[in-house]
Amino acid sequence: MLNLIAFDADDTLWDNEIHFERAKDRFKDLLSPGCAPEWTERELYETEMRNLAHFGYGSKGFTLSMIETALDLTQGAVTGQQIRQILEYGKELLQIPIEPLSHVESVLARLAQSHPLMLLTKGDLFDQEAKIARSGLADYFTHIEIVSEKDQQTYANLLQRYSIHPGAFCMVGNSLKSDIMPVVALGGHAVHIPYHTTWAHEKVDIGESQRRLYHQLDDLAPLPNLIETLSAPGVQG
Amino acid sequence: MLNLIAFDADDTLWDNEIHFERAKDRFKDLLSPGCAPEWTERELYETEMRNLAHFGYGSKGFTLSMIETALDLTQGAVTGQQIRQILEYGKELLQIPIEPLSHVESVLARLAQSHPLMLLTKGDLFDQEAKIARSGLADYFTHIEIVSEKDQQTYANLLQRYSIHPGAFCMVGNSLKSDIMPVVALGGHAVHIPYHTTWAHEKVDIGESQRRLYHQLDDLAPLPNLIETLSAPGVQG
Repeated sequence: MLNLIAFDADDTLWDNEIHFERAKDRFKDLLSPGCAPEWTERELYETEMRNLAHFGYGSKGFTLSMIETALDLTQGAVTGQQIRQILEYGKELLQIPIEPLSHVESVLARLAQSHPLMLLTKGDLFDQEAKIARSGLADYFTHIEIVSEKDQQTYANLLQRYSIHPGAFCMVGNSLKSDIMPVVALGGHAVHIPYHTTWAHEKVDIGESQRRLYHQLDDLAPLPNLIETLSAPGVQG
Repeated sequence: MLNLIAFDADDTLWDNEIHFERAKDRFKDLLSPGCAPEWTERELYETEMRNLAHFGYGSKGFTLSMIETALDLTQGAVTGQQIRQILEYGKELLQIPIEPLSHVESVLARLAQSHPLMLLTKGDLFDQEAKIARSGLADYFTHIEIVSEKDQQTYANLLQRYSIHPGAFCMVGNSLKSDIMPVVALGGHAVHIPYHTTWAHEKVDIGESQRRLYHQLDDLAPLPNLIETLSAPGVQG
């Protein structure tokens, strides 16, 4: 039996990465032709990775990293007008429209009748709360948890806090690194629903033997049937 | 009986506002003499208030507001070097030393033996988690909750989630607005421990009749005795 089904939010229930990609494209345009786009892209990613330990995930840290990158790449010659543009890109990210992806609403409505659902997302607390509110999906979830990182320890703490055995837990998400592999390592069920684009930081290489440890679906539509199978007596994770 | 004692963190368990004040002073120096310090201070506060709905509380939003203020006050003529300085002030805020205030460690150690303790703080998730880790105080707390706002609804949801009656709850903190008044309004116990400086946004006017609804202490030292009194049978909030 499954006692808890948890869903990742960004790029699982609604689009997120495409908005960051768009902001990055505009940032690269803003600094060109002075800085080649590939150069800007690489430098921004390196700045983001360096700042992750200070900023964590989210739009505000991303905006600060864009500003730092612009200063580095222009040796401080970036103009006030350009900095103002970057602040605008950041504010737009904090107000992106949150539209549920295909099948999301109907599948959540159906599963919420039979199982407690959790929304489990990492990132900036304030930004994520605002996105959940804008999504209109909050009422389908019994629990909402916003965490700063989704690693094996996070899942272990969460399952302990909710007194859920890993074998009775199923995580649904688009990130192999954050949603799938840590859950599988604990002995939980995991359903991978790939999104069409993945942030470099979330990319991992998966071997054939690991692929057999989780389920993969193209979208949420077949999830209720899969959950039914997993909930059948005697099924092992 | 008290079933849960919750503590605010910033400026209750450790210094916080003085670090922001210092960053503000350096920011005002950075823009002077071109911009008068009082002018910079007022403009920064207005920018922060305007951005609160997008950014929430915390160092990253504060840093973005400093940058926006510098652009506004200089009509975009702020230099790259100045922007880099502002980024540095922001990063320093994310790495401030976290030293427990007087009596904090001994009082937490004593109360943790008799009551479940909660650390209840608002702000940036990532930053607050890092501060709690640096404080070395995490082990005294049964529960740690980081929220985006501390209003009456937040406390009501929290008490419901933990199945705690307001009369069995005591909140300890330095902010009348965030720690005391919303708890008192729900019928809970509240202990106000003023800090020597208060962010303008957290200031409220309190009438004489309201002052009788909560307890006030100069520091944490007398808290265990007060908690003992509150825990005595028949005591009302």
